[in-house]
Amino acid sequence: MKSLLNKIDGMLKEKKFSQVKNILSQENPADICALFEELFGDDFDERAEFIILFRLLPKDLAAEVFAHMKSDMHKHLISMFTDKELREILDESFIDDTVDVIEEMPANVVARILKNSTTAERKAINQILNYPKDSAGSIMTIEYVSLHKDMTVSEAFEKIRKVGVNKETIYTCYVTENRKLIGVVTVKDLFMADEDDKISDIMETHIISVDTHEDKEIVGHMFGKYDFLSLPVVDREKRLVGIVTFDDAMDVIQEENTEDVEKLAAITPNEESYFKTGVFGHAKHRIVWLLVLMVSATLTQIIITKYENALQAVPTLLAFLPMIMDTGGNSGAQSSTLIIRGMALNEIHFFDFFRVVFKEFRISILVSAILAVVNGVRIYLMYDQNILLAATISLSIVFTIIVSKLIGAMLPMLAKKVHLDPAIMATPLITTLVDSCSILIYFNIAVAILHI
Amino acid sequence: MKSLLNKIDGMLKEKKFSQVKNILSQENPADICALFEELFGDDFDERAEFIILFRLLPKDLAAEVFAHMKSDMHKHLISMFTDKELREILDESFIDDTVDVIEEMPANVVARILKNSTTAERKAINQILNYPKDSAGSIMTIEYVSLHKDMTVSEAFEKIRKVGVNKETIYTCYVTENRKLIGVVTVKDLFMADEDDKISDIMETHIISVDTHEDKEIVGHMFGKYDFLSLPVVDREKRLVGIVTFDDAMDVIQEENTEDVEKLAAITPNEESYFKTGVFGHAKHRIVWLLVLMVSATLTQIIITKYENALQAVPTLLAFLPMIMDTGGNSGAQSSTLIIRGMALNEIHFFDFFRVVFKEFRISILVSAILAVVNGVRIYLMYDQNILLAATISLSIVFTIIVSKLIGAMLPMLAKKVHLDPAIMATPLITTLVDSCSILIYFNIAVAILHI
Repeated sequence: MKSLLNKIDGMLKEKKFSQVKNILSQENPADICALFEELFGDDFDERAEFIILFRLLPKDLAAEVFAHMKSDMHKHLISMFTDKELREILDESFIDDTVDVIEEMPANVVARILKNSTTAERKAINQILNYPKDSAGSIMTIEYVSLHKDMTVSEAFEKIRKVGVNKETIYTCYVTENRKLIGVVTVKDLFMADEDDKISDIMETHIISVDTHEDKEIVGHMFGKYDFLSLPVVDREKRLVGIVTFDDAMDVIQEENTEDVEKLAAITPNEESYFKTGVFGHAKHRIVWLLVLMVSATLTQIIITKYENALQAVPTLLAFLPMIMDTGGNSGAQSSTLIIRGMALNEIHFFDFFRVVFKEFRISILVSAILAVVNGVRIYLMYDQNILLAATISLSIVFTIIVSKLIGAMLPMLAKKVHLDPAIMATPLITTLVDSCSILIYFNIAVAILHI
Repeated sequence: MKSLLNKIDGMLKEKKFSQVKNILSQENPADICALFEELFGDDFDERAEFIILFRLLPKDLAAEVFAHMKSDMHKHLISMFTDKELREILDESFIDDTVDVIEEMPANVVARILKNSTTAERKAINQILNYPKDSAGSIMTIEYVSLHKDMTVSEAFEKIRKVGVNKETIYTCYVTENRKLIGVVTVKDLFMADEDDKISDIMETHIISVDTHEDKEIVGHMFGKYDFLSLPVVDREKRLVGIVTFDDAMDVIQEENTEDVEKLAAITPNEESYFKTGVFGHAKHRIVWLLVLMVSATLTQIIITKYENALQAVPTLLAFLPMIMDTGGNSGAQSSTLIIRGMALNEIHFFDFFRVVFKEFRISILVSAILAVVNGVRIYLMYDQNILLAATISLSIVFTIIVSKLIGAMLPMLAKKVHLDPAIMATPLITTLVDSCSILIYFNIAVAILHI
């Protein structure tokens, strides 16, 4: 990659454009896009070579490279395109990629794109744009191969040859009758059949499909489960309206994973990448939960104020407060993270509630016993063999871990049950609850054991 | 799903096995496997119907269902199989799935599997088993379609028809010469070409491949980037030894994501699902970091002991300690999580170090200013207009957030630079450092402003 970068950079400086053209036409579109990003960085809109290089690409490759680019490059290129160039790119692009571009463009650019599309393209674009955000319909493409049940295998091959070049995938074909999806046949099935076999005899009629309004997260799960190359999308009357291909499903899976990780770290989900998001954007996505968590810490503040006398009596107690709170927080986060991930992967359901809670209870007993012993011995040795202090800390650890793990296990499941996002709900509530419980447990045990 | 479950359950009770067989042969293997898990739960090894149902499946479907199962079901079924049954399942299975099964079985079961494999299968299994864990070689399959460069398109079609049924994918074919990979041609390319075209004329010679020893995480990235159906795996001499298919790559992506999420929550990564892991297993995966974090909290303990006098002088200070520590922890976790995720997705590299640090610095100024104002006003109003206390808390928040975000941004990148796992290193170090810094900042500012 680096050597290619230097080579191209050198040729550009010497204006050896035809050599650059030869090299680029050999490369994979994803690599060319990465090359552009490396080569021009954030100044692509001020570098004349960017559009020159792009224009050097063969039309079909240019469209593929275009599909890989980020929205700010799209905006810049479209503003530089003549209407003819824009039409050529749109012509070579798949509808779902065009829709992705449109969704990120301001109104005047959208108008220009639609003006330069054919009537059929415009209709398809509008159809996809009309499905709810994050639905199966919004990520599908309409470019699939449809067959008729009375076709023979060799007629099917002929049709694939004729229409295939413009289809996003040809390897799974869909059999329709009055627009209803009645069968699925793969190119592998076609190869294994005789030339004169009827499609109706070899097609799979037990069809797995999704509704246009299904959440795209569910679509991602289905690809993970079934290992499909593409999944048909049907409307309420079971009419085939499009397909989702595995590459788009993979993008959805990665997006959902990033979202979940962000939510667990108290960040409002952000679809753009780290560098594409500005300082204000980042601040906006982080401030909400920091504010909520800060204000909810008023609870711990009130609790501590109540026990000020105990702390004045035995100042040493204070030294262990951060450790007990952190241990509680970490234990709770371990449980909630595993439960939230398990639910995201469809491995844990609400009917497992008591099974999960009982399991976490047993785990917390085991874990807390070990931590309590280690810590008890440590404090006994460090603090002049003060057995009461050691007992206070160890008992506090045991109860804090048990309570934190139970809260961490139950809250995400309850949140999902009442249709709240477990990852979002879990973070602030668990932190606040676990902190408050830890402090309460600690001070109450201290008051009881140390007779303050 | 539920209705199918009830239907099958009813039929089983009435011993209507042939009806069950008809229904199951229509279903998708992933669904049948899920059905078995629902139907028999953890008692599958005590329920005679489990093996009866499995034996009802047509051989090819049985092998696919088998591939979807978890290791304890594999172990039970293999112990129930006759040698003939085992041979039939192995015969219908893809080599990479067989290797997955073998990797989880005890030695005596492995011996039985190898005994019932053909010599060629045994050789392939041993080859894959010899690659390092988590390498491209360990997840590849050897069942690909290879073509010769002098073949015509119609000869290629003929070969695909002949050998395709046993190949995991036929849609991307690999052109080899003396076992070296010299070209790639897709079935779509073949369809779009003329029957008499030579393979050498239509094949793609700019080949993207991985080395057998490449980390499977990189393989996952490449699928995400290039949208391939399969990726060729070559040895050091560029000889083709196998392919990785997109479904296995998708599994790798999900596994890596789960691992990263677990590491962020201070859990040692665990490849088994939540319920498949026993109480002792869970405890083992969680205790390590809880212990490390607990012991490293000795640092906060020492710091607090040093400032005991200040706290005795102004007891109110104590009430805000948890809030300041939590705000620091949350701010640090936001930054470290985004950076770790960005590096996992290959969007952030070490050469971005100063760019990231500067960006996080600016974000932290913005975020901390808002939090400081909100909190300052709150404390001013709640604590009898004590402006000095409000100033202490607000200033502490500003510095705590700035320092936490910088630690959260720098540590994961530095960890990766010295080849430590950023997700694992980040958690304990960041927690301990951020906690200690928060307390130090808070007490020093308090001592300075309140003249204690």
